[in-house]
Amino acid sequence: MTIYQATASAPVNIACIKYWGKRDTKLILPTNSSFSVTLDQDHMRSTTTSRADPAFEKDRLWLNGKEEEIKAAGRMATCIAEMKRLRKFEVEDKEPNAPKLSTFHVHIASFNNFPTAAGLASSASGLAALVASLAYLYDLPISPSKLSVIARQGSGSACRSLYGGYVAWEMGSKSDGSDSLAVQIAPETHWPDMHAVICIVSDDKKGTSSTSGMERTVETSTLLQHRIKHIVPQRMEEMKKAVLDKDFDTFAKLTMADSNQFHAVALDTEPPIFYMNDISRTIVNIIVEYNRISIANGGGYKAAYTYDAGPNAVIYAPKANIQEILQLVTYYFPQKEFKDLFGVLRGGKLEGRLVEGFNEIVAKKYDVGAVKGLIHTKVGDGPRKLGNEESLLGESGLPTNLVA
Amino acid sequence: MTIYQATASAPVNIACIKYWGKRDTKLILPTNSSFSVTLDQDHMRSTTTSRADPAFEKDRLWLNGKEEEIKAAGRMATCIAEMKRLRKFEVEDKEPNAPKLSTFHVHIASFNNFPTAAGLASSASGLAALVASLAYLYDLPISPSKLSVIARQGSGSACRSLYGGYVAWEMGSKSDGSDSLAVQIAPETHWPDMHAVICIVSDDKKGTSSTSGMERTVETSTLLQHRIKHIVPQRMEEMKKAVLDKDFDTFAKLTMADSNQFHAVALDTEPPIFYMNDISRTIVNIIVEYNRISIANGGGYKAAYTYDAGPNAVIYAPKANIQEILQLVTYYFPQKEFKDLFGVLRGGKLEGRLVEGFNEIVAKKYDVGAVKGLIHTKVGDGPRKLGNEESLLGESGLPTNLVA
Repeated sequence: MTIYQATASAPVNIACIKYWGKRDTKLILPTNSSFSVTLDQDHMRSTTTSRADPAFEKDRLWLNGKEEEIKAAGRMATCIAEMKRLRKFEVEDKEPNAPKLSTFHVHIASFNNFPTAAGLASSASGLAALVASLAYLYDLPISPSKLSVIARQGSGSACRSLYGGYVAWEMGSKSDGSDSLAVQIAPETHWPDMHAVICIVSDDKKGTSSTSGMERTVETSTLLQHRIKHIVPQRMEEMKKAVLDKDFDTFAKLTMADSNQFHAVALDTEPPIFYMNDISRTIVNIIVEYNRISIANGGGYKAAYTYDAGPNAVIYAPKANIQEILQLVTYYFPQKEFKDLFGVLRGGKLEGRLVEGFNEIVAKKYDVGAVKGLIHTKVGDGPRKLGNEESLLGESGLPTNLVA
Repeated sequence: MTIYQATASAPVNIACIKYWGKRDTKLILPTNSSFSVTLDQDHMRSTTTSRADPAFEKDRLWLNGKEEEIKAAGRMATCIAEMKRLRKFEVEDKEPNAPKLSTFHVHIASFNNFPTAAGLASSASGLAALVASLAYLYDLPISPSKLSVIARQGSGSACRSLYGGYVAWEMGSKSDGSDSLAVQIAPETHWPDMHAVICIVSDDKKGTSSTSGMERTVETSTLLQHRIKHIVPQRMEEMKKAVLDKDFDTFAKLTMADSNQFHAVALDTEPPIFYMNDISRTIVNIIVEYNRISIANGGGYKAAYTYDAGPNAVIYAPKANIQEILQLVTYYFPQKEFKDLFGVLRGGKLEGRLVEGFNEIVAKKYDVGAVKGLIHTKVGDGPRKLGNEESLLGESGLPTNLVA
């Protein structure tokens, strides 16, 4: 008997022009376009195996080996239903001999190779991997942009993880959301020099979920509409040009300004939403000073910070600056051990160190643990089709990593 | 020989609609109107003695017993010159027998009864006391509004300390600044129930000065202009009405929203400006929860936080809520000792305690010292003329509290 199954992996993406606000909460249509860089799934990724089988009694989903309920009419159910509909419409209706996979229930097992607790965008990579694995399972002859429309309905920013490289989520204008989708502005090979350092920041405060946070901002901020209408459209155009020109100065300025503005409108919410904490702000000060001395010496920007709906910092920088950035961060935030996933420092020793001319007092030194970990990665590709040897489902149709 | 001398005290004011941005840095003309509550000078005040004497060789100034240079064409020199000009124009030119005090040099001694290091608005009360003492010395027949035009040129928000109670600083439109002045919307007797708790927050970061901070915001924030043109004018009208109606709910909502928005535009600055720290934000969370349970039980707002260009919280509340607020704050921020300046708790013991229904986990408990002190005060009156027994200048014309 044939096993209908496919496994895919998908990357994390971190926005440089931020998505904050929905104009349609059901379809997840945003109030503004956004822009992100896709990070290398050699380091961080979600892997998902989907199997369709006439013997399955219902659609089921496991995340990291633990079953999650697929709520009727929920976001997950919507994505699965949409994918089945595409299978029928694009394949089965056209090829009478194609197996009627759209009529079978599916089992889906997904795994994130990075801690979900770290506050990284695991829902983006997770939903992208789910949609990608179903697209491979169903053998759909459609573009990542079209798939992104479906991933978007699972988790807004997931749509941007359907492409590698430099990706825009165009907000669209149609009420059915069919034009609210991801497009690739440039592949990762266009500007492979873009690296990133993620600082996992310790936080003892439970943050506001981004879903409820953005809802409150849309309802109560008196600055958000101005941002949406008058600031973001121009920044999107400038950002696309900066990436096409490989103009890091403009990329950095826009990335930092838009991170700041996202947190500004969150603060302009009633009651106010704070995602950055004192540690996050210390990292801002370090990067500001690092850029200041470079610019004072006639150079350009050396790094750009950005913060999502949490305290973690993501620092984008050209590869050549990564070692200095890691040394600066570990100077103020000592690490017990540091494993450089990407290997720039392989063979070298990581030592906290200031760079020439750096004004030490812009930040205070923290104890070990304030920054819980550092991840060094870079721009990467979009979803990958994996072989059956990477399947997360066993013969039985249950996850191989099942958690009781 | 007659001694020409006057002593005045002036209060601190804390804005509810914030001043942030100058359209003219020399004249200190603001980009938007602002609104404040004047705090009781029985608790916090600046006291200033001014003396004019033909024997003095130059204008001199002492702050807390330490001489400060009066820089030529600086803000202090401008204020003194303007006051002398008014003396001549309003008094000497009209009454030929009036002594020609405008031709004498002055000695000015000023004293703040609260630590300047606390980050409270000492420049506001200080400049107001200086201008008031000179006005008494020169026997000027002019209104506080007219004096406020001069105090404004010393330190923008000082103009609001020329009145007690509830005060608007109308931004004006003239290029000479003659209509950018303070007006009293209601005296302290109109709504004496307005009390305040100031939380002095520990901070190990050197903040951005408000002068350079607002300059950077005007230059780089893409949200500030929207705030100035479209948000503040409406809030000013709503705030005036709220005060005239003694409508604490509206007062609280506007005060918190405008504090948040001021910090939002500071954050929307390049590089971003952070004045609030994790302790400040914890106090926000406490007040938000305190209001939430009241509103959930069918009540209204119980308190309103506001933050200036630093981490300290000022909490406005009706007198009846002060004890609960002090207990809530000290529950999360234990104090070694607590001296209630205003005496609501006189005879009672201050114990950190939650109120009924308060969700404890909205904040984490800090150690002693995170909030370094609490000041309980209330709305108060404008500058006072004091008797000679309160003079800060000795017979010699030098300060009695001279610091070597």
